[in-house]
Amino acid sequence: MISKSDISLITSLQHKKYRDAHRLFVVEGWKMVHEAQASSFVVRNVFSDAELTPSEIKKISLFKTPAAVVALVEQPQYTMELPALTGELVLALDEIQDPGNLGTIIRIADWFGIRHIVCSPHTADCYNPKVVQATMGAIFRVRLHYTDLPTFLREAARHVPVYGTTLDGENIYTQSLQQEAVLVMGSEGRGISPDAAAALTTRLHIPSYPPQSAGSESLNVAVSTAIACAEFRRRTSER
Amino acid sequence: MISKSDISLITSLQHKKYRDAHRLFVVEGWKMVHEAQASSFVVRNVFSDAELTPSEIKKISLFKTPAAVVALVEQPQYTMELPALTGELVLALDEIQDPGNLGTIIRIADWFGIRHIVCSPHTADCYNPKVVQATMGAIFRVRLHYTDLPTFLREAARHVPVYGTTLDGENIYTQSLQQEAVLVMGSEGRGISPDAAAALTTRLHIPSYPPQSAGSESLNVAVSTAIACAEFRRRTSER
Repeated sequence: MISKSDISLITSLQHKKYRDAHRLFVVEGWKMVHEAQASSFVVRNVFSDAELTPSEIKKISLFKTPAAVVALVEQPQYTMELPALTGELVLALDEIQDPGNLGTIIRIADWFGIRHIVCSPHTADCYNPKVVQATMGAIFRVRLHYTDLPTFLREAARHVPVYGTTLDGENIYTQSLQQEAVLVMGSEGRGISPDAAAALTTRLHIPSYPPQSAGSESLNVAVSTAIACAEFRRRTSER
Repeated sequence: MISKSDISLITSLQHKKYRDAHRLFVVEGWKMVHEAQASSFVVRNVFSDAELTPSEIKKISLFKTPAAVVALVEQPQYTMELPALTGELVLALDEIQDPGNLGTIIRIADWFGIRHIVCSPHTADCYNPKVVQATMGAIFRVRLHYTDLPTFLREAARHVPVYGTTLDGENIYTQSLQQEAVLVMGSEGRGISPDAAAALTTRLHIPSYPPQSAGSESLNVAVSTAIACAEFRRRTSER
């Protein structure tokens, strides 16, 4: 059985305001729920179609074809300590707005062993249901931190290289890339904001092919993130 | 002015059956319409909000916030000649179903100077409006061919290497990669189908990091395509 107040709570969690207030988020589908249960996250409730009527499941699911199971999960409380972020490759996101892109980026980070993503405050909320589903479970392994990005980058730059992908950057394939570093990706529309760009120590560019081609203007930000992370990790196999 | 029959025609083109029958497709937004006009494609009609009422524009637009302009564009008739496909890097797609993924892959191909994509018959239709919009204009530069994929790959393999990304493949970074070749990407759920896989000459794998990690099970197919294409093109700068 599910109470009316549970239904009301779950549907309210589509909105960031209520996710923040309750420090909860929603996960749908058996695979995602099992990943939540196997993770360090606290799963508060699981509602499945074994106990709910089709109309109840439909009410609490965001999917057009409702998932057979929906879980209420507590948002973890991470404390971000800067020194802990400088012994490894850390991703930083400046105003990534599209939930699908953010979810895909979290999945990419997980694939490439990146454990921390530092986000500017206006980057999409990682507990947005569309982000959560697009991570395919990576949300339970990669830690996201929302903080003032220029401040974080200036502090990080005192210890490690701060790379960023920009249109006027150096060819990523000809640059030395250190694994203990921060890699900044900007929003699709505007790139890295001036305040964050000022803290970069090296600007990188993913070359098109042939190099002088004037076809596509840009790559999707998740695609650029994947290519850049792959190149950082490729270098480790060369050492 | 737009006639009722134009509105009816445009809305019918959301369905492949009518796109095939009329050999037309729809493009929305000024940027895309300008790209269509600057391309080799034939733009049959342009309907903008300068001549249409808001309710008319809303009827013919697929967007929640309707675009200010919608164009009717003719589907080009490409003839696929196999020899012409073996002097360059050609992408082959086996049953990519998601329109967003296909659109992103076309955009990636354009960025990396890939002019031809050969698709299995059940790959999403490249003139699906969601695919067209996701290409950001690359649909006007990259040619898609729908044909029986195993037959194409067996013929191609007589002339050039046929690479495919598989879970059991060799590390892409340690393999020799030829630029005159076919690169096959499989569907996200099932990978490359057995019939197509039988025609591969080299199986490639994008390593996760650290290599033995058991986190994310897979990368999104558009992300894998991007990393593989980037690696093929990176090699050209080493020669």
